[in-house]
Amino acid sequence: MATTDDLLRRRAQHISPSLSVLYRDDPIHAVSARGQYIYDADGVEYLDCMNNVPHVGHSHPKVNHAIADQLARLNTNTRFLYEPLVDYAERLSALMPGDLSVCFFVNSGSEANELALRLARAHTTKKGIVALRGAYHGNTTSLVEVSPYKFEGRGGAGRPEHVQVAPTPDPYAGVHRDTDAAHAYISEVDDAFFRADASVPAGALIIEAIMGTAGQVEPPAGYLRGAYAAARAHGAVVIADEVQIGFGRIGTHFWGFEAQGAQPDIVTLGKPIGNGFPLGAVVTTPEIAESFHNGMEFFCTFGGTPVACAAGLAVLDVMEEENLRQHARDVGEHLTAGFRALADDHLAIGNVRGSGLFLGVDFVTDRGTRGPDGELARWLVMQLRRHGVLCSTDGPGDNVLKLKPPLPFTRDNADRLITLTGDLLTMRD
Amino acid sequence: MATTDDLLRRRAQHISPSLSVLYRDDPIHAVSARGQYIYDADGVEYLDCMNNVPHVGHSHPKVNHAIADQLARLNTNTRFLYEPLVDYAERLSALMPGDLSVCFFVNSGSEANELALRLARAHTTKKGIVALRGAYHGNTTSLVEVSPYKFEGRGGAGRPEHVQVAPTPDPYAGVHRDTDAAHAYISEVDDAFFRADASVPAGALIIEAIMGTAGQVEPPAGYLRGAYAAARAHGAVVIADEVQIGFGRIGTHFWGFEAQGAQPDIVTLGKPIGNGFPLGAVVTTPEIAESFHNGMEFFCTFGGTPVACAAGLAVLDVMEEENLRQHARDVGEHLTAGFRALADDHLAIGNVRGSGLFLGVDFVTDRGTRGPDGELARWLVMQLRRHGVLCSTDGPGDNVLKLKPPLPFTRDNADRLITLTGDLLTMRD
Repeated sequence: MATTDDLLRRRAQHISPSLSVLYRDDPIHAVSARGQYIYDADGVEYLDCMNNVPHVGHSHPKVNHAIADQLARLNTNTRFLYEPLVDYAERLSALMPGDLSVCFFVNSGSEANELALRLARAHTTKKGIVALRGAYHGNTTSLVEVSPYKFEGRGGAGRPEHVQVAPTPDPYAGVHRDTDAAHAYISEVDDAFFRADASVPAGALIIEAIMGTAGQVEPPAGYLRGAYAAARAHGAVVIADEVQIGFGRIGTHFWGFEAQGAQPDIVTLGKPIGNGFPLGAVVTTPEIAESFHNGMEFFCTFGGTPVACAAGLAVLDVMEEENLRQHARDVGEHLTAGFRALADDHLAIGNVRGSGLFLGVDFVTDRGTRGPDGELARWLVMQLRRHGVLCSTDGPGDNVLKLKPPLPFTRDNADRLITLTGDLLTMRD
Repeated sequence: MATTDDLLRRRAQHISPSLSVLYRDDPIHAVSARGQYIYDADGVEYLDCMNNVPHVGHSHPKVNHAIADQLARLNTNTRFLYEPLVDYAERLSALMPGDLSVCFFVNSGSEANELALRLARAHTTKKGIVALRGAYHGNTTSLVEVSPYKFEGRGGAGRPEHVQVAPTPDPYAGVHRDTDAAHAYISEVDDAFFRADASVPAGALIIEAIMGTAGQVEPPAGYLRGAYAAARAHGAVVIADEVQIGFGRIGTHFWGFEAQGAQPDIVTLGKPIGNGFPLGAVVTTPEIAESFHNGMEFFCTFGGTPVACAAGLAVLDVMEEENLRQHARDVGEHLTAGFRALADDHLAIGNVRGSGLFLGVDFVTDRGTRGPDGELARWLVMQLRRHGVLCSTDGPGDNVLKLKPPLPFTRDNADRLITLTGDLLTMRD
């Protein structure tokens, strides 16, 4: 086995530094993983609180078996007929509300959001897009252009003319914090569409129900329905980006938008959908699919292959068999309660938010101003890593501890994280 | 098992008609595949002459074993350190000429070309692109915009302002056919860059060494070096799209551009790279990678996972162990000779071209005008299918029989295809 130093040196020769490595000064040389645990080259076990892609657990045997079994039989493309594609499209559609019943399969969340933009533009004939500050929707040219997290961040080229940005609907540390924050943030979405109307009219609002890169931001009650309505009043469709939060992670519901009783026009899926097998999907209405059906074929070589669909089906099976949505809700409530109890003793914890196993702990320098304490959050992440627990930070102040573990994460795992965090914060106080 | 009719009916409810099905009136309900054969629900065996994705053969046990084995151990992302990523990047780089040594891994050829455009624009700071008529480079917004095959085809929105199109360098039926066609086509590329300079200056020429969707078009000798030089004289970089033709398919060389002794600045890889496992790659120079490294992270969730790299490594191993590049060359020469012999008896065969197992047979109404006989080509494809052989057509006149089988395709398979084609053409004469 290569030493970690050797691996880093060789990696530097052939992999661009544009790709980052976690814990740069002491990266994790991973060799195996199982459930909610990752093991490094020295046999050290890490509790994984950061990876939402291995949704039903790292190396889940049922998913892996389904992939291997289908690989051994048939892997081809959607120009052929085969059952797994149809079975999977039926299963996914059945999980969606209303007439969200037409599925497109692609290879990633980026490809899903790319296609969603094409669908929205075909349907509305409007090129503009409204996105939320702090949002990330993918790594292609068109998606970096609608990701304020990227174009307003390091190396970013600024806001393109066809994109309008509405504020992060953060009722804790955002621009509107009072009891009427929902209305204020909805008005901001409306304003963004008015600005678009006066410049490049917007055909879509692209929106995550709980915002990941913005710092695990849960919008105030009523926001989603209001924001969706504002978009529709301007002749736009709503793209719900469920790449991070979909598939039962939020515990109370299978999809993020359901938590606020909102119904989008286009839903995009990625990350957890295949438990790490490259897969993404777009689900939309027959009406929007028909607008896109203008004679130009859409073909995605690896999208919806029998193997990809077998992976997707197995993930849905495991979700049901292991009751993982309910489990995410239970453990999430326990984690939230534990962190809220810690906040009684540690003033640095300003806010604990999120749902199920998609949580954020907002570290502040001052509970009055709610100013971000990114330094403390980053210190905590480094300390946790030294104690064998993997978490990350995000948000504009890099001060929000993000928790989005594989769903098998247990109450005991939660207790360990809470106790360790408490001990570390006490040590630092 | 579902009946084919039932499957079609259910598919129509949940899969957009924008996705096409081969042999629409009698589609192939595939249930298994092995090597160069596909089997349908009735147990009928089809000789596969069309699928270049199962590069080393459908369901290759070595590739499948490598995927299953790595799935059982570790599947994570590039923010962790692990050996397969580095091993694979080293192996791919070693196959590239010159200083093409920095690899980016993504999930498809589309994602590879998307990233290639971002790299080219970052390096040159020029947004324009020159592409060739008939070319297809992917299914995202930015790639449809640089794919004349799409934007000039059905449902296409026409040429965007930032894209200039040079003619398909087809010395047989293209706009320049004489002995000096290479120079004429190179001049056309130069002209396209001059038009770009006067409009939106072009930062890249994106080009396939043998054009697939344009009708398996092999440019005249010297064209690639001349076209590359023209691009560079205008301050652009060259993106070699090897998604269809790479990995030894052309027999004489591992990469298409090598056949004309040309060296690109960015190479994009897809389709065959993982034998059907979703994988794509971009290989570029340290200089271009450095231009892209401006502080913005590039992250592709499933790109370069240990499992994707294990698939890629296994494909390279099998290529070597089974000597498939040389095999493609041998069988390709045999196929080409066979079709050229058929042309002696059948005036409809105007041209047999390509290299290795990436061949095109151009059907014409008249050998003088070289006008396309799409009807004959489509009829032939339907007849071949009834005789258990799967081929497709392409080209602007839909008159070019495309041959790009899995590489295990044998001389006996070739003989069967040639004999059957001869019999069918004789029947039709």
